[in-house]
Amino acid sequence: MTIHNGSRVQVGDAHLAPALSVEEAYNVSSYTFDALILQHGGQFGPVTLAYETWGTLNAKRDNAILITHALTGSAHAHDIEQPDAPKVAWWNPLIGPGRPFDTSRYFVICSNILGSCYGSTGPSSLNPHTGQPYGMRFPVITIRDMVHAQRSLLTHLGVSQLAMVAGGSIGGLQALEWAVSYPDFVRKVAVIAATPALTAQAIAFSEVERQAIMADPLWQGGDYVPGEGPTTGLAIARMLAMITYQSEEAMELRFARQPARRLDIPSPSHASNIGGRFDVEGYLYYQGTSLARRFDANSYLYISRAMDLYDVSEGYPSLESALSRIRGKALFVGIRSDFLFPAAHVRWLAEKVKAVGGNSTYVELDSPHGHDAFLKEWGQMTDALSRIF
Amino acid sequence: MTIHNGSRVQVGDAHLAPALSVEEAYNVSSYTFDALILQHGGQFGPVTLAYETWGTLNAKRDNAILITHALTGSAHAHDIEQPDAPKVAWWNPLIGPGRPFDTSRYFVICSNILGSCYGSTGPSSLNPHTGQPYGMRFPVITIRDMVHAQRSLLTHLGVSQLAMVAGGSIGGLQALEWAVSYPDFVRKVAVIAATPALTAQAIAFSEVERQAIMADPLWQGGDYVPGEGPTTGLAIARMLAMITYQSEEAMELRFARQPARRLDIPSPSHASNIGGRFDVEGYLYYQGTSLARRFDANSYLYISRAMDLYDVSEGYPSLESALSRIRGKALFVGIRSDFLFPAAHVRWLAEKVKAVGGNSTYVELDSPHGHDAFLKEWGQMTDALSRIF
Repeated sequence: MTIHNGSRVQVGDAHLAPALSVEEAYNVSSYTFDALILQHGGQFGPVTLAYETWGTLNAKRDNAILITHALTGSAHAHDIEQPDAPKVAWWNPLIGPGRPFDTSRYFVICSNILGSCYGSTGPSSLNPHTGQPYGMRFPVITIRDMVHAQRSLLTHLGVSQLAMVAGGSIGGLQALEWAVSYPDFVRKVAVIAATPALTAQAIAFSEVERQAIMADPLWQGGDYVPGEGPTTGLAIARMLAMITYQSEEAMELRFARQPARRLDIPSPSHASNIGGRFDVEGYLYYQGTSLARRFDANSYLYISRAMDLYDVSEGYPSLESALSRIRGKALFVGIRSDFLFPAAHVRWLAEKVKAVGGNSTYVELDSPHGHDAFLKEWGQMTDALSRIF
Repeated sequence: MTIHNGSRVQVGDAHLAPALSVEEAYNVSSYTFDALILQHGGQFGPVTLAYETWGTLNAKRDNAILITHALTGSAHAHDIEQPDAPKVAWWNPLIGPGRPFDTSRYFVICSNILGSCYGSTGPSSLNPHTGQPYGMRFPVITIRDMVHAQRSLLTHLGVSQLAMVAGGSIGGLQALEWAVSYPDFVRKVAVIAATPALTAQAIAFSEVERQAIMADPLWQGGDYVPGEGPTTGLAIARMLAMITYQSEEAMELRFARQPARRLDIPSPSHASNIGGRFDVEGYLYYQGTSLARRFDANSYLYISRAMDLYDVSEGYPSLESALSRIRGKALFVGIRSDFLFPAAHVRWLAEKVKAVGGNSTYVELDSPHGHDAFLKEWGQMTDALSRIF
């Protein structure tokens, strides 16, 4: 077991340096432990988790809040140097003194998830036994595995109980899994834009994204040289994902049928548009290209698959028996316009938890912004979180 | 001008022979004319349209019904040898004696659209001036161009007035365009699962599909050898399109989270699934691979783009002024679960036509099958069409 604290590193520096920008540098710590027993069998290690913390752990060591991130997120949920800039850290406006995740009262932790590429062990990490990146020899990982790895980190940090675990999307799956896997350790849980398991439609979108990546010749069965990976395929995958994170309504409000304002961003395929370019197309090229520059394609494959494979009831006699394990106060937040994790399913989950005896509250964000509303609707998110604090 | 009638050909034989199956052979006629003036400027020719007809044109030459097909469809809307097999022709159960498109009373015509690959002139056709396929040198074509080409065909066939024009999806765009472009020629129009213009979200999905095709190295800027085209990219495009043609509800009913029943269909990328295969994935691989075998990738690019570019109001002072041109009785059919051409937009169109003085009726199919319901809900489609006959 090795511990490595407080060095200033580039995000995912060890694994992906050529592809990442300097703006994403921040203070990150990391913790390495020997082995993790995996849900799908076998054990895997060593495992490193990169993490950031804000605030101070109290004497009883029970004021910690774990924040769990989504597919392409990182430990950088908050930026202490630019606390008011929403885009420099993914939940920046919700974290800090006097904010919902109040760092004057709580010790807030966010760790990069297992399988990712921002300092935690993932497919782009070097396998210490071979000296080569794992690539597709990385094991199948699940949301439960991510949570178990986080549990090791919290032991290392000396946390005796979590005051709360909170996250949206895949982060919401982790939050739900935390409350079910470790009921006595979690006093409160906020599950945002997440459901007990994905719909067939969501799995289908996810698989189209993976096919776009794996069909790119530069993917090479996952054995690409860092910085020379399948950026075209990953950009196309991200274009599709961005549609599923928004909504018809949001895209209509923002783009409608306007011609592109910018023509200088090449499409992932570098082919020209037939008959001009729509603004929504230029926007998607930009988003796709940006992600391809900052994220590892194999991490995308493994984490998106963990999302598809997630079923909170796995290993329990029934969904009810899994949900009845939750002891803490639970907040479920759905988003009216979310079609990836539909609000009706989130509400159903909240009602199910109540039906099996849980302390469950459901709040719906009235937002046109689709799935991504949990990263945009700061006022409504603050109000929603006030229902559980 | 040359005319070529009644030969038995393979679908798109001249252009795509290696990729097409024998099952799709049928009796098709074709008509060639010298030039078409294009909406986006210039003229293009020669233009061949492949078509099929059922029933007999009456003495007044005014009992013709034009059926207009969708993106990957063909002139084969009905199969006279297997009239009760829904899958051998795309509107088979709706066409025939005693059926909504009653061939004992009407002369029913369906032509393969301009830009397609089933016998009509498209990007895979040989440019007579060079002896090479047009590829991406094919001009930008629009729904209006498709309709104008069909107008030439009807003149050739001696039709004096259409009793009706009817189609769904891109076929619905054509039907709407017919009623606006040629109001005196169209007595009735049935616009099904189609809207005055696509949403930004629909354009976005469409562009992801095209990027998947054009990123495939076998696309080669559109200059692939017939039968050696970008089948991987086209299969991925079709996977995505199939999601947008269905609905969350339909996919949940059919697939939910069931494991794949068949593992023998390779994915487009030929890569393995991480942690097993879901049934919805196997289904999408099958659909993707099937289309890639039967359809031309460049045709897909051009026709899907014509769909995106469509705006019924183009060239008119306003949408209202375009819609006020419609003289005939108009039926608009929305589908409750359609998210590509949302029912609310179809209803809005129907109301707009009424508001500008048109004879407009709106019917909504109560189906979970999404956009594709117009190719599946035979009972409801029959009832809907009875509102206009």
